[in-house]
Amino acid sequence: MSRDVSDPELRAALHRVADMVADYLQDVGQYPVLPKVQPGEVASMLPGIAPRQGESLDRILDDYARIIEPNVTHWNHPGFLGYFSITGSGPGILGEALSAALNVNAMLWRTSPAATELEERVCDWLRQMLGLPEIFRGHINDTASVSTMLALAAARHAQPDLDIRELGLAGRPEIPELVVYISDQAHSSCDKAVMTLGLGLRQVRRIVSDEQFRMRFDALAEAVEADRRAGRRPMAVVATAGTTSTTSVDPMDRIAGLCQREGIWLHVDAAYAGSAAICPELRGQFSGWERADSIVFNPHKWLFTPIDCSVLLMRDVETLRSAFSLVPDYLKTDEEGVTNLMDLGVQLGRRFRSLKLWMVIRAFGVEGLQDRIREHCRMARDLASLIDQDPEFAVVAPVPFSVVCFRWIAGDSPEQQDSLNEALLNEVNSQGPVFVTSTVLKGRYTLHLAIGNLKTTEQHVQDAWQIIRAAADRVSAAQLR
Amino acid sequence: MSRDVSDPELRAALHRVADMVADYLQDVGQYPVLPKVQPGEVASMLPGIAPRQGESLDRILDDYARIIEPNVTHWNHPGFLGYFSITGSGPGILGEALSAALNVNAMLWRTSPAATELEERVCDWLRQMLGLPEIFRGHINDTASVSTMLALAAARHAQPDLDIRELGLAGRPEIPELVVYISDQAHSSCDKAVMTLGLGLRQVRRIVSDEQFRMRFDALAEAVEADRRAGRRPMAVVATAGTTSTTSVDPMDRIAGLCQREGIWLHVDAAYAGSAAICPELRGQFSGWERADSIVFNPHKWLFTPIDCSVLLMRDVETLRSAFSLVPDYLKTDEEGVTNLMDLGVQLGRRFRSLKLWMVIRAFGVEGLQDRIREHCRMARDLASLIDQDPEFAVVAPVPFSVVCFRWIAGDSPEQQDSLNEALLNEVNSQGPVFVTSTVLKGRYTLHLAIGNLKTTEQHVQDAWQIIRAAADRVSAAQLR
Repeated sequence: MSRDVSDPELRAALHRVADMVADYLQDVGQYPVLPKVQPGEVASMLPGIAPRQGESLDRILDDYARIIEPNVTHWNHPGFLGYFSITGSGPGILGEALSAALNVNAMLWRTSPAATELEERVCDWLRQMLGLPEIFRGHINDTASVSTMLALAAARHAQPDLDIRELGLAGRPEIPELVVYISDQAHSSCDKAVMTLGLGLRQVRRIVSDEQFRMRFDALAEAVEADRRAGRRPMAVVATAGTTSTTSVDPMDRIAGLCQREGIWLHVDAAYAGSAAICPELRGQFSGWERADSIVFNPHKWLFTPIDCSVLLMRDVETLRSAFSLVPDYLKTDEEGVTNLMDLGVQLGRRFRSLKLWMVIRAFGVEGLQDRIREHCRMARDLASLIDQDPEFAVVAPVPFSVVCFRWIAGDSPEQQDSLNEALLNEVNSQGPVFVTSTVLKGRYTLHLAIGNLKTTEQHVQDAWQIIRAAADRVSAAQLR
Repeated sequence: MSRDVSDPELRAALHRVADMVADYLQDVGQYPVLPKVQPGEVASMLPGIAPRQGESLDRILDDYARIIEPNVTHWNHPGFLGYFSITGSGPGILGEALSAALNVNAMLWRTSPAATELEERVCDWLRQMLGLPEIFRGHINDTASVSTMLALAAARHAQPDLDIRELGLAGRPEIPELVVYISDQAHSSCDKAVMTLGLGLRQVRRIVSDEQFRMRFDALAEAVEADRRAGRRPMAVVATAGTTSTTSVDPMDRIAGLCQREGIWLHVDAAYAGSAAICPELRGQFSGWERADSIVFNPHKWLFTPIDCSVLLMRDVETLRSAFSLVPDYLKTDEEGVTNLMDLGVQLGRRFRSLKLWMVIRAFGVEGLQDRIREHCRMARDLASLIDQDPEFAVVAPVPFSVVCFRWIAGDSPEQQDSLNEALLNEVNSQGPVFVTSTVLKGRYTLHLAIGNLKTTEQHVQDAWQIIRAAADRVSAAQLR
């Protein structure tokens, strides 16, 4: 028989990994956020064929330390200030390690009672923490992309008398075009969901946003009316609470009113900013979401839980269940009145994701989570003031949470300004200590800085600003030469 | 500021978890496979609201040990012989722990070069191990449900001149009904994919299987022809290599020929049995899959990798990319010629799943993996002989891999036999040391025993058979009383 991994070897390797993880979390700030690696470089360090014989765990961990760890982008780095900055916190890592050892598939209650009931319980904790009504039922998916797709599939299923589940969309003249409304700031996952569900990208109405990047309600109302007049059926509005570029919040109160009057499904994409609603003083910004039909928010974004963990809260979970439940003979069980998570979506296999989330919530406590989110928001506001005090820079969007969008006011034309900002970003990111990303706002290249990692301190943010400032000087000087 | 998790506390907890994982893997066999727990019992041990204050990691881990671990179904138990038996092996657990600490989102090459390139490399190792042509490109999804949905979305996108991505399926008289062919033994994920994609369940043709539970080729050819005659368009065939009930293998060679002639997409669902193709002597059973357009196989099923890890191999990955790629401003990057994994499906967020898979393949080596799969198949064959030697039992399906389907020949009518077999299964599963599941074959209740856990030995299988035998005697005796 070939080489076996003995119990003592494994135990030793687990302890070695414990130290590797602890060391990494302690020292990750010493890496450049972006690895200095060219495309193909990692691949060239990996053999082209799999080893015939087993290798020792120590040797594999050595290679991990040599080839893999230095060549990832360090999302857990305190200087990671791009996209939405996230945290794989210690308690969450413990949960993931235990979950991998249990290796349960929580597709049915029976295939893991504790995983099913913990998921329901923890999602209800979150519902309360977010201040949402009791009627909402949550469950965990991998990503917001999937949660939003499921929500829109439920919206499609809720269309009266169409029975799309059974009959499909094609070859049925009685099926109207089903329209989905999002703002021009909405996440691409909305478009992907519409594509996947067979509705067609042309049924996505990108409603123009206002000067603060919020969906313009008047434009939404007009679009809905125009579609009705043209014989199309407004199916769903996706309102975003915390858009990807600026974390702007769509006017959910007014949108909810329209949706109620018109019988349109309201899905709220709060994937990032939803976490902020656990702070009572920030919750006002979410006003109206309690009237939504579905809400997605991702603890793996701003609630310090390792990726993946996306919570989908449904006002009427039965609609989702009837859209997706399908129980083959080999998955029939006797238990009555239990939740079988497989009924709530596309995926049959379900990891035990609530375990890490439970550990995170318990380790920090609600107040601890609130404190940290407040602190991130405060640091973002302070940075925004600093930027605004600099005559060469401008904050170009409100800062409702922990993301600051800004621009270097340089160059003689908008185009030149765009390219100078792009050069600035490349210069900043080539330094190592920080990673900032970009977006486009009203057609203009914009720098986007997000604070969301637990290890990011005041000092890191100050340093980031100094790095940006110094980089601007260097880019300027290079221009003049 | 609220309680923080200090570095030393976290390090100590990581070491405690290292021992908990090692102990669990060593002693899991002492648990009953199915926990003795009633619906609601776990929930009743969990507070109804989240804690205000943070708690110590030790206290949380104590609760894990008390509330969670004893109340999961132990998928990693050597006596777990239900569904498809799986293994979260030690090397895979190391990978998951490290991956949680890195917490990368491998959506773009830039957001984790090592994760992207390792995924490509490891998928190519697997391609070679399975004996598939170089043209196939693999990437990792969470589940086969998603992989199959993506494959069918690619098939839909490949329909010439329909542009369903942009225009959708509804309100277009020129769109024919798009039909998907599966056998009556195919997995429910095929139906779910068809539902989700908006094609409608009525477009699923469940082709009858033969006496060995393989799709009847003549019936498939007839169904395709009938649909063509009726003006519908045959879009895809999903052939299964290793069906969920019996691990039967559809005649892929003939099906591939038909698909080629007719311009129909061929997707192969080898989610479980695909792993067996790494053994040259078992590969013959997969003949024809090298002509497929797409193949899914799950290392998290029978390749000892913790859930979730599903590999989708595409003959023309560009079709998938053009079905799903959609790059918003905030995700644009400069690198050319790199793979951005987000382009290959619905999900934007991507865990670093290749890490665990790399560790598993290296720790066991190709020969080690082959040995273990062979051993599982041998144990299944031996058990089947044992069952067949017992006049009261009958093996009711061929055993091409490691699943044995059998029935207790008892009762005076088919209905009574069904209910006696059900009673037998409940009696077996109530004992603790083993967990066996059921399915329905040709309308008849059938016991389904799967061998796939690394810790399952000859002795466990023998014990399982003794337990089944003894349970039958007890059920018999209870009947007579």
